[in-house]
Amino acid sequence: MASFKFKHIGVAVASIEQALSSYRVIFGYHVLSGPFEDPVQKVTVCFLGLDQPGEPAIELVSPSGEHSPVNKYLANGIGAYHMCYEVEDIESALAHVRSNGSIVISNPVPAVAFGGRRIAWFYTPTRQLIELVER
Amino acid sequence: MASFKFKHIGVAVASIEQALSSYRVIFGYHVLSGPFEDPVQKVTVCFLGLDQPGEPAIELVSPSGEHSPVNKYLANGIGAYHMCYEVEDIESALAHVRSNGSIVISNPVPAVAFGGRRIAWFYTPTRQLIELVER
Repeated sequence: MASFKFKHIGVAVASIEQALSSYRVIFGYHVLSGPFEDPVQKVTVCFLGLDQPGEPAIELVSPSGEHSPVNKYLANGIGAYHMCYEVEDIESALAHVRSNGSIVISNPVPAVAFGGRRIAWFYTPTRQLIELVER
Repeated sequence: MASFKFKHIGVAVASIEQALSSYRVIFGYHVLSGPFEDPVQKVTVCFLGLDQPGEPAIELVSPSGEHSPVNKYLANGIGAYHMCYEVEDIESALAHVRSNGSIVISNPVPAVAFGGRRIAWFYTPTRQLIELVER
């Protein structure tokens, strides 16, 4: 079976700057990398972490313009909306999830936030949005 | 400052059983504990984990009845909707988040899924729903 390694939780926010300040003061998060503007995904993203070991990263995601897919999550008043897993071979991982009832909504494209490594998106059969990033 | 330790990602699902089967076959998750029915929160929950170290837990949350607060997340077609952190002292953590612009929506009550340990809920200033559980 394809091996999935949890990478981050994606959290939709209206403003990276404002969210960053809240996540710093409330939880103690610091910036791991970013912000990055990704013209393909129409978003700006920034990765946050906590100091303790084993803490999952948070990816703040803000829309770039009115056609960004993130706007609908903000409209619903919802922050956390996707989970990201790292996989060895993104094509075989997509074949695996597709053969188990998932719906692939975006085939692999390079992502600025991961130094050009490719990402893809799918919905699980119970409608969870998942991002894959190749190792 | 209060210390927040990441505990799990809460994922709304229509049926625990159906989601469990998908999360098993797609990602390789196994049950850590549950399912538990929580009459106070009007939900059934089940905790899942992966075998690798440092992998965050997933809490599948399904509504118990039509007045469950989880129904609105399912209606929006969204799975992941909350993040849970463990804190030493839940009252002082709530005072801390409140003094930093968060809105506490539910004061501490005992939770079945945590053996009676108390949980509370708040929204960050950028509208992320957060659960706290006392250590």
